[in-house]
Amino acid sequence: MSLAVVVFSGGQDSTTCLAWARSRFDEVHALTFDYGQRHRAELAAARRIAKRAGVRHVVVNLHGFGQVSASALTRRNVKVRADGGLGGLPSTFTPGRNLVFLTVAASYAVSHGAADLVTGVCQTDYSGYPDCRRSTIDAVEQAIKLGNGLDAFRIHTPLMDLTKAETVRLAVELGALPLLAESHTCYQGARPACGTCPACVLRRRGFFEAGVPDPIAYRLADAASN
Amino acid sequence: MSLAVVVFSGGQDSTTCLAWARSRFDEVHALTFDYGQRHRAELAAARRIAKRAGVRHVVVNLHGFGQVSASALTRRNVKVRADGGLGGLPSTFTPGRNLVFLTVAASYAVSHGAADLVTGVCQTDYSGYPDCRRSTIDAVEQAIKLGNGLDAFRIHTPLMDLTKAETVRLAVELGALPLLAESHTCYQGARPACGTCPACVLRRRGFFEAGVPDPIAYRLADAASN
Repeated sequence: MSLAVVVFSGGQDSTTCLAWARSRFDEVHALTFDYGQRHRAELAAARRIAKRAGVRHVVVNLHGFGQVSASALTRRNVKVRADGGLGGLPSTFTPGRNLVFLTVAASYAVSHGAADLVTGVCQTDYSGYPDCRRSTIDAVEQAIKLGNGLDAFRIHTPLMDLTKAETVRLAVELGALPLLAESHTCYQGARPACGTCPACVLRRRGFFEAGVPDPIAYRLADAASN
Repeated sequence: MSLAVVVFSGGQDSTTCLAWARSRFDEVHALTFDYGQRHRAELAAARRIAKRAGVRHVVVNLHGFGQVSASALTRRNVKVRADGGLGGLPSTFTPGRNLVFLTVAASYAVSHGAADLVTGVCQTDYSGYPDCRRSTIDAVEQAIKLGNGLDAFRIHTPLMDLTKAETVRLAVELGALPLLAESHTCYQGARPACGTCPACVLRRRGFFEAGVPDPIAYRLADAASN
């Protein structure tokens, strides 16, 4: 009986990872972090998707994390923009966010006897988010093994080297489009999605390049035609 | 202007680290994690000590972490004992607790422009707590650097190779005994301290071997005579 824990935001990538994990493990638990993020619509999406997927869903209150870190995703007075954040990183970069999510998820996994963690991070995002690189994930995996005295613990990153279009095709192969219809991506937290923020633009381009219609609705007429 | 962030529980070791950091950095912030731990007396001690030391004190709500992890420190129905926890580890071992504390503290540090983190972990505790080893700390440090795109970030572990007696002597050198008079160690959360739990016994032995009277009160007459 193998159990995998998925770091699950309710967005496109983690929803694809949830489907991926379901296809490979006997049991899957989805962990969603509530850290006071501005896009609350993600939490609602996560609940809908987990219910439809029939997996155990745990929402972990990490409001204290939102309180210590500074980024446009947790502070309403910081504007979302492609640059201008800390150290020239995007203002949507929350310092070390993935490190915190992965170490908390690992504690959950170890407590439940699971040695497999799945996260949707992807090197395509690397320019903006250094904690999405496989080298960072390897270091976290090593820290988790050493810190828990475990010989075997694996952080799976099935989307690491995929383009957004390839991720869309993987979702189609996994039969995950009905789940993606409930997913949330927009950084503005809008539903229908704004279609113009960096996250929406990336998602739209991926579906467009994969030649697959995006099952979610967009606010803009031109975006909705994708 | 150098700023260091101390992972600060309000116990003997982190109080000594607070004094150590104050002697080496221009400014010190103390971060205390409230994860629903059974020994709530630690939080009160942390507040008293930070106030007396005159450093900025931030209590970070990590109740969500207590919720995902299983240990005698966060669950009232788990008995504190020296063995019998997960994988033969002590029942007081919270899987990956230090990994979570260090990654959250690193987010705070990076958000505040600090490149120095101080933690009181110590290899003396290694038999029970694999996340107290320097090799684990090195892996976490590497993950923090890679995950934040930083060349320089240091996790200081001034107590790593010290015996409890040497830690007591260091505290004396740093003039930290008045702070230690407010510190809390007892796993039972008792004040006066129980004097008989593993944490109390370790603390009492350290002061005894250092030839320094412990400035806190113990419940047991024979312990109080130390």
